Amino acid sequence: MRKIPETLHRQMVARSRLFRVEAIGLRFSNGVEVEYERLMSSTSGAVMVVPMLDDDTVLLIREYAAGTERYELALPKGLAEPGEDILEAANRELQEEAGYGARRLTPIRQLSIAPGYMQHRTHIVLAEDLYPQRLQGDEPEPIEVVPWRLSELPALLALDECSEARSIAALFMVRERLRGGGSEA
Amino acid sequence: MRKIPETLHRQMVARSRLFRVEAIGLRFSNGVEVEYERLMSSTSGAVMVVPMLDDDTVLLIREYAAGTERYELALPKGLAEPGEDILEAANRELQEEAGYGARRLTPIRQLSIAPGYMQHRTHIVLAEDLYPQRLQGDEPEPIEVVPWRLSELPALLALDECSEARSIAALFMVRERLRGGGSEA
Repeated sequence: MRKIPETLHRQMVARSRLFRVEAIGLRFSNGVEVEYERLMSSTSGAVMVVPMLDDDTVLLIREYAAGTERYELALPKGLAEPGEDILEAANRELQEEAGYGARRLTPIRQLSIAPGYMQHRTHIVLAEDLYPQRLQGDEPEPIEVVPWRLSELPALLALDECSEARSIAALFMVRERLRGGGSEA
Repeated sequence: MRKIPETLHRQMVARSRLFRVEAIGLRFSNGVEVEYERLMSSTSGAVMVVPMLDDDTVLLIREYAAGTERYELALPKGLAEPGEDILEAANRELQEEAGYGARRLTPIRQLSIAPGYMQHRTHIVLAEDLYPQRLQGDEPEPIEVVPWRLSELPALLALDECSEARSIAALFMVRERLRGGGSEA
């Protein structure tokens, strides 16, 4: 593995209510120097939940997405609150967005979404042994919960409204895991 | 499907060399009003390439990622240049980053990465019938090309350095496609 580039300087160059942009100067091991900009993450962790109602049925949510300006069909997700660990945050988001709590929560892995220019990483958590439990969240309107069968994942991917890369990656990873490794060619 | 919220106002609230943040006020169909912020995309499209050297071997690249501040193993990607269509951009990025051109380029689908607060969408393109062809890119150091077998995708996911959600989603989608639909339960 190559040596990580040397950091020559860092500076916060733009910020808004939600976003902070850092400029960073790097010198690579071959001597080449480059200026980058990157989006800094919130200090709390981000979490995405794969809630399994049974061995084949996952709970998706349909929610308005201000970034793409349309309704998106994806997995429940959110940010951890101060003092909350990742599994607690996953269980809270699940109760707020899908109306279920989970007796079993398993961290699957972390995903980055744009590692070239975003610090952001999301913890993917598998939620099993669910029970109905609603917590009030800060959503502007009731969220629609859409059960989907993992065995019908290709039909889900054929829908334009299911476009979010983390959700698609997480659904495949969990299907692989529940099928028992899935390392068959 | 619900009615898209009404846009009450839009305003550019922060910008840097690379990023632009828009504040947006929305009124949902139930009358609730919410203020959001979202990151605007570059006007040209973004593209990610799944280059298949043969029916089972995909070409990954290992490149330093300034966002996560480490080397990441992922698929080749980049932005379309003015006047370039998505398939031309895919073929150029493939030549710059992996040293191959493709005689067959197939759009797979678009992925969003954070639809709640980013306008960004990436076009996933399958590249087949490859031939060695190098174009000079703007990379600060030579990019390491790492061939990987799709039949060994679980071993790839076990590596922490392969964390990027779009790459993982795209690899699963292409594996599914090359296996012939993969709609079996």
